[in-house]
Amino acid sequence: MTLQPVTPAFLDSLRGRLPPATFREAEEHHLTEPRGRFRGTGLLLAPGSTEEVATILRACAEARVPVVPHSGGTGLVGGQLLSEGVAPVILSLSRMDRVRAVFPEENVLVAEAGVILADAQAAAERAGRMFPLSLASEGSARIGGLLATNAGGTQVIRYGNARALCLGVEAVTARGEVWHGLSRLRKDNAGYDLRDLLIGSEGTLAVITAAALQLVPRPAGVGVALLAVPSPRAALELLAVAQARFADAVQGFELIGRMGFDFLEETGLGASPLTSRPDWSVLVELGLPEGLEPGPALERLFEEGEARGLVTDGVLAASEAQGAALWELRERIPEANRRIGSVSSHDISLPLSEIPGFIPEAEAALMALGPFRVNCFGHLGDGNLHFNVFAQKGEARGTHDALRRRIKELVHDLVHARGGSVAAEHGVGRLKVADLERYGDPVKLSMMRAVKQALDPRGILNPGAVLRSPGETTT
Amino acid sequence: MTLQPVTPAFLDSLRGRLPPATFREAEEHHLTEPRGRFRGTGLLLAPGSTEEVATILRACAEARVPVVPHSGGTGLVGGQLLSEGVAPVILSLSRMDRVRAVFPEENVLVAEAGVILADAQAAAERAGRMFPLSLASEGSARIGGLLATNAGGTQVIRYGNARALCLGVEAVTARGEVWHGLSRLRKDNAGYDLRDLLIGSEGTLAVITAAALQLVPRPAGVGVALLAVPSPRAALELLAVAQARFADAVQGFELIGRMGFDFLEETGLGASPLTSRPDWSVLVELGLPEGLEPGPALERLFEEGEARGLVTDGVLAASEAQGAALWELRERIPEANRRIGSVSSHDISLPLSEIPGFIPEAEAALMALGPFRVNCFGHLGDGNLHFNVFAQKGEARGTHDALRRRIKELVHDLVHARGGSVAAEHGVGRLKVADLERYGDPVKLSMMRAVKQALDPRGILNPGAVLRSPGETTT
Repeated sequence: MTLQPVTPAFLDSLRGRLPPATFREAEEHHLTEPRGRFRGTGLLLAPGSTEEVATILRACAEARVPVVPHSGGTGLVGGQLLSEGVAPVILSLSRMDRVRAVFPEENVLVAEAGVILADAQAAAERAGRMFPLSLASEGSARIGGLLATNAGGTQVIRYGNARALCLGVEAVTARGEVWHGLSRLRKDNAGYDLRDLLIGSEGTLAVITAAALQLVPRPAGVGVALLAVPSPRAALELLAVAQARFADAVQGFELIGRMGFDFLEETGLGASPLTSRPDWSVLVELGLPEGLEPGPALERLFEEGEARGLVTDGVLAASEAQGAALWELRERIPEANRRIGSVSSHDISLPLSEIPGFIPEAEAALMALGPFRVNCFGHLGDGNLHFNVFAQKGEARGTHDALRRRIKELVHDLVHARGGSVAAEHGVGRLKVADLERYGDPVKLSMMRAVKQALDPRGILNPGAVLRSPGETTT
Repeated sequence: MTLQPVTPAFLDSLRGRLPPATFREAEEHHLTEPRGRFRGTGLLLAPGSTEEVATILRACAEARVPVVPHSGGTGLVGGQLLSEGVAPVILSLSRMDRVRAVFPEENVLVAEAGVILADAQAAAERAGRMFPLSLASEGSARIGGLLATNAGGTQVIRYGNARALCLGVEAVTARGEVWHGLSRLRKDNAGYDLRDLLIGSEGTLAVITAAALQLVPRPAGVGVALLAVPSPRAALELLAVAQARFADAVQGFELIGRMGFDFLEETGLGASPLTSRPDWSVLVELGLPEGLEPGPALERLFEEGEARGLVTDGVLAASEAQGAALWELRERIPEANRRIGSVSSHDISLPLSEIPGFIPEAEAALMALGPFRVNCFGHLGDGNLHFNVFAQKGEARGTHDALRRRIKELVHDLVHARGGSVAAEHGVGRLKVADLERYGDPVKLSMMRAVKQALDPRGILNPGAVLRSPGETTT
C-alpha cells in the first residue's frame, strides 16, 4: 500500500477526534520556503497538545497519509514542504508554544516545539541565564525545527550545535505513541541515544513535541572586535592564538570576505567600519569570566596578532551597542545575498586545516566557468562556510541558472575531496538528497535506511526528506 | 536459527581467513570484571586491523556466532562478558592501539579503538593540546570501550561525556561492513546521527574501530581547592556562585561525604586535610584563561562562599603538586570502597535540584533496613552520584548480601521517582537490563528494540547487554 492523500473522508474522521482549533487554513508561509525553490501543498493541522499530535499520527499511520512537520518554516533545504506526490498533513507545531518550566538552579528550560527561539532566549534571560543558540532567523525559527535540523549559528564554537544544547526530548513516534523523554540529566547512559538520533533527523523518524534545553551562565563580560586578516590561513592562526589565551571564552569567530561588505554597500544594508577594505576580516567575540575585562583582552589579542603578522587592522567595540552593531553587519550579509540573488549557495564544512587550501581552489575552479562573484563567509571556528556564488553586478538574475547544477557539483566535489560536508548546518531536506547519495558513506546510508524502516515502517514521516522514498526516482 | 557457539569447524574457517597473530589465549582479565560479579567465556580473537574486524564479523554473522567486543575490560556493569548461553567470540580491540593522526591546528586526534586513554591524553599533550576525558581507570580503559559506554569522569561539567568529545567514528556493522565515518567536522548535518547512536550502545549495534576525538586548548592556569560545605544544598549553591563568576572555567566539582574520608583512613589510603572533619566537602577545580590567576580566583570564591554561609573551611592548593594530591584523595575513594566491600553500589544521576532532597531521603530509607554506612560521593556538577552502601565496620563481608536486591530497588525507586537515572555513567551492561525494563520509558524501549533489530538482525552483537536477547528469561 502506497502513501495516500488526505481525502474528505479522512478529514471527517479527524474532525471527530480533534478540537476545532486544530483545523486551520494553510497560509502562504506554510506552503513556501525562504528561497522560493519549493512549493508545498497539504492539509494544515495545528494541534495544541502532545496528545493531539499523537492522535493525528495514529490516524495518519492507519490511513498511511504522509505527515510533514512544520515548525518556524525558516529551513533553507525544503525539509518543511512536500511539493510532489500526494497531499500530506502539514503538522504545524506553532500552537504548542509554551515554556513549560524553567529551572535556573539546574540551568534547564523545558520548551514545547512551537516556542520561538527568541522567546526561549528571553525566558532564559528572565531567569538570569542564557540559551546560547543564536542565529539570524531566531525571531521566527521554533525549537522543534531547530532540533529537527540540529541548527548551528554563531556561538557553536563555544556551546555546540542545537544537539549539544538538548538534554531530553518528548516525541511522538510514527505509530502515534508518546516517548516521555524530557530528562534534565547531564549524565544518563540508560539505553541508546535516541534523543540525538531524532535531533537532526528532520522529522523523518518521529515528531519532537518538547525539549529540555541546556542553559548556561551568562559570561561576566563580552567583547567584540572586527579584525582585518591577510588570509583565511592567518584567520585560523589567529583563532589558535585566541584559544590558547582564552580557551572556550572564544565564543564567536566569523570569517567575512570583502565581497560580504561590498554586498552590504551594494544593497544599502551597511558598510565596513574598516576603511582599509581588507580582503578578509574576522568578527571575534569573547565571553569572559569575572576578573577579565573584554577591552584589554581584545587589545592583547590584537597586539599579538599584529606582532605575528596575523592582523593588519581592526576595530574594537567600545560598548555593548558597538558590539551589537558589528554583529548586525555580519547578520545582514544573508539578507544582502538574498537581495542580490545567488546563482548557487553552498552550506559546507571542512576540517579546519583544509580551509586555506579550499577557498582559492574553489574560486579558481569557478572562474574557469565564468566571471562569477563569490561571497565566502561563515562560522570559521566551526569550519562552516557559506560559499555563495553570484553573477557580476548588472547581470540579470537568472543569467547563469543553467550553470547552477554544474557549479554546485564543482563546489561539492571539492568539499568532499577534502573530507568536508555539503550539508553542514542547514541539513539535507529535499534539496540535498541526491548529494547525500553521491557523497555519503554507503554503509552509513544503508544503516540510515534500516533505522528509518525500523522507526517509520509505513514511511509516513516527512517522506522524501533526507532519504529518498522507496520507489521515488532520481531527480 | 538461534545463536551458535564457537565450534572447532568455525575456528578452522577463521584460521584460513585471519593471520595467526589474531588468535590468542584468553587471559584472566578477558574473563573477569573489576567487581567479580560476572565470569565470561569464549574464544579470544585480537584483530590487528579494521579489515580483520570486518572479516570476523562477517564470519560470525554467517555462522550466527555471538560477538562480545572487549576493550580495556574496566566496565562495572558486565557489558564486556558473556557468562551465559553459548560461548562467543571475545573480540579484543587491544592490538588496534595506534594513534593514527594528530591535527593540533584542528584540535583533533584520530585513535584506534584499542588506544589506552592515558596514551591518548599523552599524545594530545605532546601536541600542546589536551584530551579532557579523565577517569580513575584511565591507565587501562581504552577508547573503544570508553565510547561504547559513553564514559563520564571528572571533567564532564566542562567538556561533556565521551560522546561530546567524539567527532567521528569508524565502525564495523553486524554484517561485517565498514562505515568510514572518521569525520573531523564540527558541523555536519548530512544524515542521521549514527555516531551518537553507536556511542553508548555498548557494542550491541556495531563495533567502533577508531574515532576522531576532540582536543581542547589547555587552560592557562589550573587551581584546585577542597572546601567544606554545610550540606549538599550549600554545595549546589556554591556551584551556582562559581559558575556565575567563572562559567565553564569550573571544570571539576566533586562532592565528598565524610564517609569518603573515613574510608580512606580506615583503609590507610589517605586522610582529609580538613581537620574540622566536615560532613560534606567539595573538590573544586578551575581552569582559567590567561590573565586570571587561579589562587586569587579560588580565594574570592572561598570568601564569597564563606560570606554566604556556603563554605565553612577549606584548603587551597598552593602548587600543582598539592592540587594533584587533592585529586588523588578523591580518586582513591573507589579503591577504598573496593577494599571495604560494598553491599550495594549505585551509579545514579538526578536533576540537580533533586539532590538535596534525595540524599537524606535515601539514607533514612536505608536506615530503616539496617544500620548501614553510606558513602555518597561523585560528580555533583553533573548530578551524578555514587551512592554506595556498606555494612558497619567490623561486620563480615557478605553479612547483608541477602538484602542487596532490596537495597538496590529501594535506592533506584527513589531515584526514578525524582526523574533520575539508575545508569548514569557506567551504562547498562548486563547488570542493569532489568532496571532498564523497570524504569525505562516503554515507547523508548520499543524504539530501541526496533533499532537493534534493524542494525543487528541476527542478534550476534553483545547479546544480552542493554537489551534482553529475544527468548531470554527474566533474571
